[in-house]
Amino acid sequence: MSILVVGSVAFDDVTSPSGTVKNILGGAATYFSLAASYFTQVRVVAVVGEDFTGEHEAVFTRRKIDIRGIEHAPGKTFRWGGNYSDNLNEAKTTFTDLNVFESFHPQIPKEYADTQFLFLANIQPTLQAKVRRSMNGVRLTGCDTMNYWINSARNDLAATLKLVDVLLINDTEVKMLAHETNLPRAAQKVLAMGPQALVIKHGEYGATIFFREGAFGIGRHPFRAPTLPIDEVKDPTGAGDSFAGGFMGYIASQEELNREVLKRALFYGGVMGSFAVERFGTERLQSLTREEIEERFQIFRELTHLE
Amino acid sequence: MSILVVGSVAFDDVTSPSGTVKNILGGAATYFSLAASYFTQVRVVAVVGEDFTGEHEAVFTRRKIDIRGIEHAPGKTFRWGGNYSDNLNEAKTTFTDLNVFESFHPQIPKEYADTQFLFLANIQPTLQAKVRRSMNGVRLTGCDTMNYWINSARNDLAATLKLVDVLLINDTEVKMLAHETNLPRAAQKVLAMGPQALVIKHGEYGATIFFREGAFGIGRHPFRAPTLPIDEVKDPTGAGDSFAGGFMGYIASQEELNREVLKRALFYGGVMGSFAVERFGTERLQSLTREEIEERFQIFRELTHLE
Repeated sequence: MSILVVGSVAFDDVTSPSGTVKNILGGAATYFSLAASYFTQVRVVAVVGEDFTGEHEAVFTRRKIDIRGIEHAPGKTFRWGGNYSDNLNEAKTTFTDLNVFESFHPQIPKEYADTQFLFLANIQPTLQAKVRRSMNGVRLTGCDTMNYWINSARNDLAATLKLVDVLLINDTEVKMLAHETNLPRAAQKVLAMGPQALVIKHGEYGATIFFREGAFGIGRHPFRAPTLPIDEVKDPTGAGDSFAGGFMGYIASQEELNREVLKRALFYGGVMGSFAVERFGTERLQSLTREEIEERFQIFRELTHLE
Repeated sequence: MSILVVGSVAFDDVTSPSGTVKNILGGAATYFSLAASYFTQVRVVAVVGEDFTGEHEAVFTRRKIDIRGIEHAPGKTFRWGGNYSDNLNEAKTTFTDLNVFESFHPQIPKEYADTQFLFLANIQPTLQAKVRRSMNGVRLTGCDTMNYWINSARNDLAATLKLVDVLLINDTEVKMLAHETNLPRAAQKVLAMGPQALVIKHGEYGATIFFREGAFGIGRHPFRAPTLPIDEVKDPTGAGDSFAGGFMGYIASQEELNREVLKRALFYGGVMGSFAVERFGTERLQSLTREEIEERFQIFRELTHLE
């Protein structure tokens, strides 16, 4: 089944202990769609400026990503600068130029009307809700957000959470959203806000999925997929979006929609996140093979598998 | 097989978001031996002062722990105060009164000479080395340390590491010891210093064991045992020592000494650590049953187990 992602396409300047790069293709929708493209057909709704060239377009089309939903607007593409010199786990933002992204009003092409899997990357919660409401045939909606919206648009975000099936956020965000420092209790509070399942990303330690009682089948307990940095972490940018791409892409590729599928999807999320950080920008995600992905899936599986 | 722990017995004052307690029995050797006592016969070498009463002794003897190695010295027992109000993951030390612990020179009773499993809790590295050298029949030695010794007694610690089989430390300590921020690379550097295996504790995310090439059998990859706080975290004091007690106690209870045993031991470590933090001090560790331990082992196992 095809999956639609709505989010940002950007040009990034990144500095990490491994070096500095400028003007590289990034943005949540870019990382997500490249990661998901190894599992299923991907559609993108985003906005770019006049500086988005055929070369950038080819990064998507070489992975057979459907970019009919990328709107070309007058002006410049969203630009972001981040520095990981002090802390590989969190970027210090050096600049944010929203440019054409400032007035982004996602338009879903009519060719995308039959979309069954939807991912709402980190944009204003009201826009996320509007997109979700406009898509009637969707079977499963995933959603991301960030501390900025949790703090400044809590009511809008709460309304959006009633419309999504799976929320994917990190430890800090879930505790902030729930006003609760104990992780399992914070998870229960967020699930009570709407989603059927909550994926909490723990950075280099993997991710945990918590389920609403009875959601996606029967089971008492949460599930954890561990990760381990295999190679050097060169650039953490896009790790979370690549995680979401692997997670949602795998789900969209399966016939069934149950807990076992979501558990395996959690592992594929970790796998794609771990590939993303091995090179600057989207470089590693552009040239993977399904065999490399399966090999790392097995390594992560064996990492916690008792005989 | 019996296991011997050499370390501190203390009285602690602890403040956490759940409240304040004063003068409760603590210390690395106490947490370790209580946790290990659910798996095997435990022997303790430590020093206490005149304020250590029959009531305190009974905490050990009710769990059939052999305390012939606890030396009674004139003066007061080691006392420590910690506050977790700001950060449940790290105590702010409010006071340290070494008292009788200041001149602790571990004496191994001759009845302990046949000990096969040894755990050197966090004491001065030179004392750890001396104990290890005095025990000829030991099959496996586990060892803890802390940032203080890593910084102030690096050479002594390096000498000790050549004598131990498994080092158990946390993320921060391994990176400090290796002068390396990438976890797998830091692990390789520490293994090159001597130990056959390295257990890195990740707090609420579990622990990872890295093996020296060829140590404890064949295998390419590290192994992770996840944990998840099941109940409220009331008092994190002793979590690491309880982890070590579960880990080493399980190993000592097994006939074989191979990677599968060490992997299961890593899960039991996480289980005992998760119980320890549910109540102040050693309360929870005093009254467990093996059934409760096995039940939580299954929960942690299922947490990452794919069908």
